[in-house]
Amino acid sequence: MRLHRGSVPLVSGWHQGLQTTRATVLTKICPFGGFLRLLGNVMPAELEQMVRSIAERARAASLALAIAPAAAKNAALNRLADLIDGSHQALLDANRRDLESSGANGLGKAQVDRMTLSPSRLGHLAESVRQVAQLPDPVGRVLEEWARPNGLKIRKLSVPIGVIGVIYEARPNVTVDCAILCLKSGNAAILRGGKEIFQTNAALAELIRKALGETPGVPVDAVQLIPTTDRAALHALLKLDSLVHCIIPRGGEALIRFVAENSTIPVIKHYQGVCFLYVDRAADPEMAERLVINAKTQRPGVCNAAEQLLVHAEAAGTLLPRLAGGLVAKGVELRCDPASADILARARIAHKAAMPPDFTTEFLDLVMAVRVVDSVDAAIAIVNRDGSAHTDAIVTSDEAAARRFQAGVDSAVVLWNASTRFNDGFEFGYGAEIGISTDRLHARGPVGLRELCSYKFVIDGEGQIRQ
Amino acid sequence: MRLHRGSVPLVSGWHQGLQTTRATVLTKICPFGGFLRLLGNVMPAELEQMVRSIAERARAASLALAIAPAAAKNAALNRLADLIDGSHQALLDANRRDLESSGANGLGKAQVDRMTLSPSRLGHLAESVRQVAQLPDPVGRVLEEWARPNGLKIRKLSVPIGVIGVIYEARPNVTVDCAILCLKSGNAAILRGGKEIFQTNAALAELIRKALGETPGVPVDAVQLIPTTDRAALHALLKLDSLVHCIIPRGGEALIRFVAENSTIPVIKHYQGVCFLYVDRAADPEMAERLVINAKTQRPGVCNAAEQLLVHAEAAGTLLPRLAGGLVAKGVELRCDPASADILARARIAHKAAMPPDFTTEFLDLVMAVRVVDSVDAAIAIVNRDGSAHTDAIVTSDEAAARRFQAGVDSAVVLWNASTRFNDGFEFGYGAEIGISTDRLHARGPVGLRELCSYKFVIDGEGQIRQ
Repeated sequence: MRLHRGSVPLVSGWHQGLQTTRATVLTKICPFGGFLRLLGNVMPAELEQMVRSIAERARAASLALAIAPAAAKNAALNRLADLIDGSHQALLDANRRDLESSGANGLGKAQVDRMTLSPSRLGHLAESVRQVAQLPDPVGRVLEEWARPNGLKIRKLSVPIGVIGVIYEARPNVTVDCAILCLKSGNAAILRGGKEIFQTNAALAELIRKALGETPGVPVDAVQLIPTTDRAALHALLKLDSLVHCIIPRGGEALIRFVAENSTIPVIKHYQGVCFLYVDRAADPEMAERLVINAKTQRPGVCNAAEQLLVHAEAAGTLLPRLAGGLVAKGVELRCDPASADILARARIAHKAAMPPDFTTEFLDLVMAVRVVDSVDAAIAIVNRDGSAHTDAIVTSDEAAARRFQAGVDSAVVLWNASTRFNDGFEFGYGAEIGISTDRLHARGPVGLRELCSYKFVIDGEGQIRQ
Repeated sequence: MRLHRGSVPLVSGWHQGLQTTRATVLTKICPFGGFLRLLGNVMPAELEQMVRSIAERARAASLALAIAPAAAKNAALNRLADLIDGSHQALLDANRRDLESSGANGLGKAQVDRMTLSPSRLGHLAESVRQVAQLPDPVGRVLEEWARPNGLKIRKLSVPIGVIGVIYEARPNVTVDCAILCLKSGNAAILRGGKEIFQTNAALAELIRKALGETPGVPVDAVQLIPTTDRAALHALLKLDSLVHCIIPRGGEALIRFVAENSTIPVIKHYQGVCFLYVDRAADPEMAERLVINAKTQRPGVCNAAEQLLVHAEAAGTLLPRLAGGLVAKGVELRCDPASADILARARIAHKAAMPPDFTTEFLDLVMAVRVVDSVDAAIAIVNRDGSAHTDAIVTSDEAAARRFQAGVDSAVVLWNASTRFNDGFEFGYGAEIGISTDRLHARGPVGLRELCSYKFVIDGEGQIRQ
């Protein structure tokens, strides 16, 4: 594990809680309205105390935010959008400082692109904040309501989860996305982003804090950024199960596994999307081609892109050359089992022989593994064995085969005659999403505002006692 | 961590998966229709392989069980009830062997009582199995259903979670309770009970396996017992997040913390029930007395018993002596803050001065901490700070105070004018429960059959692609 020690800036919010003990090593430098720079190394015990202090304030804020009216939360969101619009220069400056360091750190082009803010990206960011303000409040819904024979009236109400820790890497939009979704759903957020975008995150967190501070009825500690990327602070956060109720890691699988393995707090996570498209013998050829090309090529780097193609043996002879031809024309490299390789060799379509790992790989690229299967049951067994239970689709005009596939495939989303790319909060109509869960507990599939809520039972009696 | 090594019986189901590698050290002794005794110490790597083999078979069973018809699951349950009825002698013999060892191990009387089976307890156990067979199948419910503007039809269906590991201590009824609730909800169960009841558990697991084996349409590996109480096997199980989807620990807080800290699999857990009863200034005295006595004394050793009493200052002078008198008459020891001690001293009612830890303690006994508070808001703040977010109640005839308390108290169940003892799956009408969750994710409060389900999305299209 790497520790990122040394000269670490701290956002001002934290200072308050610790000023009596840490004042000697803190010097105010205020590059963006109130930062602090931490001089020298920080001892793990001090980091632990800092993180605990943040979590305690988040917990207190969560109790106030849980009963905050929707109008107050929306006002804070709209204020934040205005502040983002009015702070382009300062945000771009902070981002430039991060980019300068990242150049020195030898990051790849795609990584740098994900880190980079621009006026147009900031415009979209502000717009997304306004859109979340427009969404219905997920808190306080009556989920169920019933009366017991003894007269007790039980209501199951949606409530915020409480305090949510969000652990992410080098994407500044995640800072805002997660903050606003947590805020709207009444959860206090503790954000911990990657070191590559630390200055950008600090600048965004400062704006969020300003919006909260300027809005009556919402606690300013509803969103806090952990002011260091020291792994010891992350470790400390992941053990605070008495104060933090949920951890959401956003990033690569290594980050997510690190979080899952080190957290005593429940984690809502996304591992892999090894998504299958199964083309049944009764598939419409034109539809099969359209769906496989969309599922594989429309955005190959995302989790709901298809990685694995299965074709029924009875249709493969005629259908596979058509599907493969379409994919190859889009630049897709096909990695084939012997049966599919044989068909494509005869059709003189470019392909490679698959290696065993190809059949369980999330390529996130213009690569697709191809296999021929004998039946819908064989397809179901392969999907359940080699897939990641994320998103799988069947193409067929045989409703019985479709229903069998949808029942038997043990995945979050199972589609019939539609692209795997539809496993997405916006495509579901949620209006926003914080991610797509591969967990089975709490949230499975797209995680929107409702999935950021828990529930409580409110019971009205007239003096009933237990017999 | 203690390791329970040495002479460890194994149930027969495991043997099959490992016979090629382990046959040399296994000798069949068949005390209960097919056990194996492991001779000599077991290496951690062998235990890991054994646990993985169990989990792989559970995973395969879970896929079959997920689409098993309700009638098949219910037939297996009814068969199990008959087998329990017909196997009293064998079960009591196994239990006697456990009790003989436990005497040697110096267990306390209450522990031994919890371990002990009797013909009457076995009768109740069989009856509870038949009752679960009668409950509606929680699988396959349409939870939500909607259509998107592009024509996609989305259905959110209840499905089993998958494979559930249940970790528990020395209560043989938990073996059956958890097995039947998992089976009914379509989940494959891996059971790991305490060493004190190992023989009893093995005998019960053998009956469950027999019932499954004799029932068409349900996989025999739907319920498996880990055939060793070696902690290394438990450790291995808790890391198998690719095969096991949920862990449910049942037992004391030490066990639950051990599981939560060592599991990479999501855990549904119950920590403490530090439950409050707040008697408002507008409380009806008779009702307040009835509720506090029921909440504290009806069954003091359970999690939803009240441990903490708060009384509004304006009512304390007259009301507290009445409440305290009633509690003391029931044998309750009162541990008081200065204000309540003062009132009880003047009323000459027995009490003690509370020490600070008393105000956050789950006594699980005829002990209650007492405080006087100035307002409903003060009560809410104390409950949220010192409670365990389990179950809290307000007694008042003031609806506004009740609603404020129910909204502000951040607990799974918040009652108005009813005993805390009603936070219970049976009292909610669930028909059965596997426990009461203090988590906020997935399940909060009573965990019944529905809470043992996850969901999946089944989407029907007509060739839609993502734009």
